[in-house]
Amino acid sequence: MAKAIRLSVIGAGSAQFSLGIVRDLCLTEGLAGSSVVLMDIDEDRLDMVYRLASRYAQELGKDIWFEKTLDRETALKGADFVVNTALAGGHQREEGERALQIKLGYYRGIHYSENMFHQFDLMLSVARDVERICPDAYLLQSSNPVYDGCTIMTRETGVKVIGLCHGPFGGIREMARVLGLNEAEITWEAPGVNHCVWLTTFRYRGENAFPLLESWIEKESERYWADNWQPDTFETQMSPASVFMYRHFGLMPLGDTSRGLWPEVWWLHRDLETKKRFWGPRGGFDSDEGWQNYLDRLSEGIARMRAAADDPKARVTDIFPPRRSSEQIVPIMDAVANDRQGYFVVNVPNRGALPGIADDVVVEVPALIDGRGVRPLTMPPLPQKVMLGAIMPRILGMERRIAGYKSGDPQYILMSLLHDHRTRSLEHAQEVMDALMAFPPNARQAEHFGFRARSEAAE
Amino acid sequence: MAKAIRLSVIGAGSAQFSLGIVRDLCLTEGLAGSSVVLMDIDEDRLDMVYRLASRYAQELGKDIWFEKTLDRETALKGADFVVNTALAGGHQREEGERALQIKLGYYRGIHYSENMFHQFDLMLSVARDVERICPDAYLLQSSNPVYDGCTIMTRETGVKVIGLCHGPFGGIREMARVLGLNEAEITWEAPGVNHCVWLTTFRYRGENAFPLLESWIEKESERYWADNWQPDTFETQMSPASVFMYRHFGLMPLGDTSRGLWPEVWWLHRDLETKKRFWGPRGGFDSDEGWQNYLDRLSEGIARMRAAADDPKARVTDIFPPRRSSEQIVPIMDAVANDRQGYFVVNVPNRGALPGIADDVVVEVPALIDGRGVRPLTMPPLPQKVMLGAIMPRILGMERRIAGYKSGDPQYILMSLLHDHRTRSLEHAQEVMDALMAFPPNARQAEHFGFRARSEAAE
Repeated sequence: MAKAIRLSVIGAGSAQFSLGIVRDLCLTEGLAGSSVVLMDIDEDRLDMVYRLASRYAQELGKDIWFEKTLDRETALKGADFVVNTALAGGHQREEGERALQIKLGYYRGIHYSENMFHQFDLMLSVARDVERICPDAYLLQSSNPVYDGCTIMTRETGVKVIGLCHGPFGGIREMARVLGLNEAEITWEAPGVNHCVWLTTFRYRGENAFPLLESWIEKESERYWADNWQPDTFETQMSPASVFMYRHFGLMPLGDTSRGLWPEVWWLHRDLETKKRFWGPRGGFDSDEGWQNYLDRLSEGIARMRAAADDPKARVTDIFPPRRSSEQIVPIMDAVANDRQGYFVVNVPNRGALPGIADDVVVEVPALIDGRGVRPLTMPPLPQKVMLGAIMPRILGMERRIAGYKSGDPQYILMSLLHDHRTRSLEHAQEVMDALMAFPPNARQAEHFGFRARSEAAE
Repeated sequence: MAKAIRLSVIGAGSAQFSLGIVRDLCLTEGLAGSSVVLMDIDEDRLDMVYRLASRYAQELGKDIWFEKTLDRETALKGADFVVNTALAGGHQREEGERALQIKLGYYRGIHYSENMFHQFDLMLSVARDVERICPDAYLLQSSNPVYDGCTIMTRETGVKVIGLCHGPFGGIREMARVLGLNEAEITWEAPGVNHCVWLTTFRYRGENAFPLLESWIEKESERYWADNWQPDTFETQMSPASVFMYRHFGLMPLGDTSRGLWPEVWWLHRDLETKKRFWGPRGGFDSDEGWQNYLDRLSEGIARMRAAADDPKARVTDIFPPRRSSEQIVPIMDAVANDRQGYFVVNVPNRGALPGIADDVVVEVPALIDGRGVRPLTMPPLPQKVMLGAIMPRILGMERRIAGYKSGDPQYILMSLLHDHRTRSLEHAQEVMDALMAFPPNARQAEHFGFRARSEAAE
């Protein structure tokens, strides 16, 4: 028995991401007959993804149907599920802003989350459209900031939002490899807020596996790092940064958490030298090289897709072999549509799942999903050191960003900038704020916060 | 009708402070016949205060009786009220530690509250003694840190603790003077947490007086500061620092709040140049000169007391004229003992008085006090900018300090140090922590946090 659903992908031009969904969808018998509406504002990329997706299903002889549209309203009509993977302004705006910030004294730029007007605006606008056009649909949020974004969307709308992140799964994979464990036989839990989650359960073949991790840390880690350690820049899980955090906070950070993306661990990111010490010879995910590597892989993915799209004789399934991914998106749709209970890791409003955190803050917790919806598991409290050193500061930062966005009060931006350890003075913060507002791609943001856009000022 | 009470003063060697209580007590008819037990570990100072206090009551012909003791247990027996004004290790230990911190790169030292083992230890020990020896007594806490200290005491014991601070009253006095208002006709409220309180009500002769303040800020403040402004270093209320905070947070900081004693406003304290810009030509209370001025006044007070004590012909009432102070201690005892309802500003566990703050965090709020005890007034919520920019960070810092003290886990000290904007790296923080623990007067602290004291290490 299969239940056909209607899925709308917002930002479907993210070729690799969209094809990943298409692949998993083709391989999920329970969703046979489903249709996918691909929506993007980049017509060229949208067209490419549409052609590849159609050919993919065709090559596998699967009963999945595709539509494409530049119009969000059209895309959302009748949707059962909406996946939002869009990045407002794309990587180009982000990198332009980063270059500006570097010039103003911020090594590698100010962390994206301190200035997220564009994403808040886009996410809220999508959520409001979902609420209006397909109010019963689940909105699966996969582009960042998942944490802040899902919090503001669930506070401002009644939409059923589920934030998803694959970081923790990558972290477990790396741990399994380094510790010599079979990933499939590990059970784990890592609650927290997105990108700040902490391993509280780690079992292997039914036994507590923390002693294995501790033994590796005590007896093998130093040698592992010394012995010509050449991690891929995506591999941050088994790094000195993680081990330091484990000792400092008392729990192992999982996945992107090991990148240290909240301001209280500024000292991990001081300069390239420090990054190398904590993440190996290439400086980890967030070094110049690491981030470039990430951007390059995105471009290479698109180039590969484009080549396949332009070559009518190529088999897409050769380039993108039909093996199920570990992404949760399609399995979640299957669980809901076919009432097939599954265990997932989701970002949803807390409502008591994690003690000591307000109900309307989105947390990352395990949940059972089935036809009735998402039911998070209640967790024991996280240790006080993790709460006071990582979770609470990250919540405070999120609340400031959301309050700033909602009020349009530039003092919140100043507050965030003054909180950055690299800001040298009040004047420095004010200079940075002015420069960010005068950056042409931020014109709408400048208006929102009561600054005159550069173009007007020049008149 | 008068009700005699028994008051125990812990740290009574603080001569000026103790004589202030004695004076107010002598001038309060409702407490005639009361007795005061003066307790200190400094026998010489204790003796001096005892003689002055006795002579003071005698000169006025008042029926107040004094005892002195070096033993806390003796002091507490039968007490109805206990005033704790003790500073563990005195200013000497604090200044020694400050010098060390300055050498390690922290201009004017790390704010006292980041490292408060000694005061926590002393306060808890006093509160536990009160709980055991005179469990029905009120403990009036006047030495700092009032905020952290009252929070830990009320969490760890069942004692009726009331934290008191005169800062806000001084702030109102300065505002009245500068705005040309009669202080007695001002009504105000400034809730928050101690040293981080914000003017929410400001009325003059029954009318909203915020327009007067705003008009002064807009039209007169710049001229006031430019016109050979030479504030006493204690005068921080009508400073550019206050006005900046008013604009940044949306409410006027009151009293010590205008000194900016929480880490999020580090940029006010960068260097002497910055301090001068924000607090006038002497750099305010917390500049080298301002703090020395504070210490000097304390010494001068003691010298004046000592001269009086050593001169049997001097009249103490000449030196310390019998005029009621604006301190709340004696009026509170009068209110409780004689069921005489009064309006006070107290630091007590929140329990719903200030929305958005946990019940077991001590807040500074107005309260009615009478024979039934302390009943805080419930306040409207503080604006979000004050909560997210000042109150919540200050709560987070307090929670870290208390968790560090309670657990003895040095990672909390490291966390606090890494949070300081002047800390340059993880190594710098570790170096500072090691140096603080090796500082001989901190030997007990070092042991508490699992460091070997220097004396042992040298063996």
